[in-house]
Amino acid sequence: MRATILYGAGDVRVEDVPDPKVQEPTDAVVRVLRSCICGSDLWPYGSMPAAPQGRPMGHEFLGVVEDTGRDVAGLRRGDVVVAPFLWADNTCDFCTQGLHSSCRHGGGYGRDGVDGGQGEAVRVPQAAGTLVRLPVAEDSALLPSLLTLSDVLSTGHHCAVRAGVGPRTTVTVIGDGAVGLSAVLAARRLGAERILLMGRHTDRTDLGRDFGATDVIAERGAEGVERVRELTRGDGTHTVLECVGTLQAWETGFGAVRDGGVVSRVGVPQYAQGPIGFEMLMRNITLTGGVAPARAYIEELLPDILDGTIEPGRVFDRTVGLDEVPDGYRAMAAREALKVLVRP
Amino acid sequence: MRATILYGAGDVRVEDVPDPKVQEPTDAVVRVLRSCICGSDLWPYGSMPAAPQGRPMGHEFLGVVEDTGRDVAGLRRGDVVVAPFLWADNTCDFCTQGLHSSCRHGGGYGRDGVDGGQGEAVRVPQAAGTLVRLPVAEDSALLPSLLTLSDVLSTGHHCAVRAGVGPRTTVTVIGDGAVGLSAVLAARRLGAERILLMGRHTDRTDLGRDFGATDVIAERGAEGVERVRELTRGDGTHTVLECVGTLQAWETGFGAVRDGGVVSRVGVPQYAQGPIGFEMLMRNITLTGGVAPARAYIEELLPDILDGTIEPGRVFDRTVGLDEVPDGYRAMAAREALKVLVRP
Repeated sequence: MRATILYGAGDVRVEDVPDPKVQEPTDAVVRVLRSCICGSDLWPYGSMPAAPQGRPMGHEFLGVVEDTGRDVAGLRRGDVVVAPFLWADNTCDFCTQGLHSSCRHGGGYGRDGVDGGQGEAVRVPQAAGTLVRLPVAEDSALLPSLLTLSDVLSTGHHCAVRAGVGPRTTVTVIGDGAVGLSAVLAARRLGAERILLMGRHTDRTDLGRDFGATDVIAERGAEGVERVRELTRGDGTHTVLECVGTLQAWETGFGAVRDGGVVSRVGVPQYAQGPIGFEMLMRNITLTGGVAPARAYIEELLPDILDGTIEPGRVFDRTVGLDEVPDGYRAMAAREALKVLVRP
Repeated sequence: MRATILYGAGDVRVEDVPDPKVQEPTDAVVRVLRSCICGSDLWPYGSMPAAPQGRPMGHEFLGVVEDTGRDVAGLRRGDVVVAPFLWADNTCDFCTQGLHSSCRHGGGYGRDGVDGGQGEAVRVPQAAGTLVRLPVAEDSALLPSLLTLSDVLSTGHHCAVRAGVGPRTTVTVIGDGAVGLSAVLAARRLGAERILLMGRHTDRTDLGRDFGATDVIAERGAEGVERVRELTRGDGTHTVLECVGTLQAWETGFGAVRDGGVVSRVGVPQYAQGPIGFEMLMRNITLTGGVAPARAYIEELLPDILDGTIEPGRVFDRTVGLDEVPDGYRAMAAREALKVLVRP
């Protein structure tokens, strides 16, 4: 089959690789209907040292079950399924507590002999626990929105849930990428009173307004913090959803949050150390968030997509075939595209 | 009157200062029955540069109302009251949300012309909001336990509350000082399933066992983390109550906490930067805690002291008169005393 392999910064290729097959009784093989490129893929795309072996890319996909191991209950050939971006058994204590990202038998795509999602097919370990059946046909117009359950919507939702967003919550969302916009959508869905979106790409922040942002702040850093405070009687918002991953974003979040409030982050931190000293203690600020246990949220979010209440698939503004994936990376890295859908 | 003034590291003196008087209509003057020395007093005692003016010390006290301004409702001369370690109006939006430490009209003792608590009397601003009447006599045997409402018990309780401690929670408490032991007591009171106390002063950890610690860990750093993991099937505890304030304590907490768990801290951080990068995100660890809004908890904790359910005053293992306060500092800094009660 054809699949996407990253060989180093800027060097992404679509190549022939062995067809996936069931190896463990708990595996399934899924033929990919839709995949996509993630903002987090851009970090290695921007900086990975050259590697002769390469690294299979992609962790968001939905598709059709082609084959199942003998221990895979509840799934059969022909089922349309979505895969959360981490595979998990859905039965261990972490999973039953909703933290599938720490599953005792879980893992990620594109490593340890598991295929990446940006290819024609994927061997999915722990398939019964991981894959969720979708009540749609292979040509459903909902596929893009359903694909966001795999990562970007679930991640935005996780960010909002960990922050404790609810009906009386004011929210600042930092970042107008696909995760930031999904966080806006999630915050709105959870009833947030007011949602300030920090971003400066008008096409993206316009979509953010459609998703529920009540205010858009184009300024960054200290100026951005000042704008948040102007809009909140000097106090900041109860919660900040940090969807970027830079140290500046954390610092902005810390400045924009109200005393006693929460900064929740889901962007992969591009820093090891950060300011967590005296002022954070005196202001009773909480730092939370983390990698999203997407599997935990799919049943909750799915109905709202099926009935059209939310249309998270609007974050995809470009669609490419598999052979065009390298250009998709280029376009996302150049900010020409918000999020690229892949149709193998 | 006599009061305690710190002039620099190791240089604490008891001196004559002007008697406090009502200055604002919202003030009260309280004659101090009991005060005490706080672990946080030891930081300036250990490191403050010499200052000719000196700094009034002490922020924990209970006493008798001597005089009240004309706007002080609900209090009158002769009332026995406890003062939380920050004064607050108890009516602003932060206070009504339980965050008295961020009160819009609040402040601290020993600065801005307000007396410290380690003296014969204190002018208390925002007295109606700050002071809580105690249904006891001036010579009650409960005074030491009631004094802990001012800070140390409320702070331990805040640490546990912010961590989300409840009946199914396992807890590691870092630090066997008075706050750590109070955190043990608070966690126990909130129903924690298991409480691991990290500390290596046997007399203190013995009191910790009386307060509800199920296990005591004498090892520190990586070895201490290993012991916590051995006792929790390799996972760590759901929550960590960090009651020290050093970077090492935060790192130990991070190592001892279970994936998805919470490190709550109340010790004044002796660091500006700390590790909050990739691993914290991947493990979904929350960092919370903060300076305690003691006022918010007094009504809840008071009945358990009055009926003898808890005896937090057991943290006081030495009592001194006002003139012996300097020796009290010395004894606490030398770890000869756990916490020193002052009887002016």
